[in-house]
Amino acid sequence: MKIELKPIGYISSEFQNPKDLRFACEKGLLAKTESKLNIRDEFLTGLKGLEKFSHLWVIYSLHKANRIELKTYPGPPSVKNLPRAGVFATRSQYRPNHIALRLVQIKKIEKNVIEVSGLDAIDGSPVIDIKPYVSHFDRLEKFKEADWYKWNP
Amino acid sequence: MKIELKPIGYISSEFQNPKDLRFACEKGLLAKTESKLNIRDEFLTGLKGLEKFSHLWVIYSLHKANRIELKTYPGPPSVKNLPRAGVFATRSQYRPNHIALRLVQIKKIEKNVIEVSGLDAIDGSPVIDIKPYVSHFDRLEKFKEADWYKWNP
Repeated sequence: MKIELKPIGYISSEFQNPKDLRFACEKGLLAKTESKLNIRDEFLTGLKGLEKFSHLWVIYSLHKANRIELKTYPGPPSVKNLPRAGVFATRSQYRPNHIALRLVQIKKIEKNVIEVSGLDAIDGSPVIDIKPYVSHFDRLEKFKEADWYKWNP
Repeated sequence: MKIELKPIGYISSEFQNPKDLRFACEKGLLAKTESKLNIRDEFLTGLKGLEKFSHLWVIYSLHKANRIELKTYPGPPSVKNLPRAGVFATRSQYRPNHIALRLVQIKKIEKNVIEVSGLDAIDGSPVIDIKPYVSHFDRLEKFKEADWYKWNP
């Protein structure tokens, strides 16, 4: 079985390739980075009301990810002594379906262009879906997480 | 451009159709509902370390969603007087790409079967990806959301 999707738009980003993006991540510059989600004209009506939210989930295609690593390092190369973990216990791009999920802040919406900050995507990435952050669904009071995310990405 | 994905597994759920599922949602029974994510054998290695997390994002295909509604109601029919909103300002299933995102609690992992609670999916739904809940990426201290999610789904 195959699932066929059509991008609802494309990302404009200052990062032209994964290397530039990784550098910004490691330097902690990502939160301030601004990108644009250029949503297809035909879906303009679908954006009505989105301005009532401060944050948005972006599901997008990691279209330059060229392999799958079932065991992988959860952090960047600069963080030493991380254990390898199963890819589904990490947010690595080298997953069987090259799909990313990222929570971003909405800065401005102008017609079908959404300006956001905090998106770790390279220029031209296809957007699969956007969904508002809804606390009833997305917020946890108590949770447990693996040590390897304590390097503070 | 098209994006082709292959399911990494399938969901076993007590809900055979969207109607049963909606009923459970409206009655507030969803949080306790247990489902299984049957991940493909070939990806078993990819699950290593997932037991260190309490919660998981499931990205799955709404394979019975049969239409797109660019303007839609953000709540169930039982909640009266909700305004219609653009589909991207809601979590409605009737979006251009029929993809769902849900945060679930991990109850048990046995080989390649993950038991979870809180998944609003019908039986047989294809799983596209699973990602651990990582507070650095997924947790917000401050946010704003639309009134129409105050009906407490």
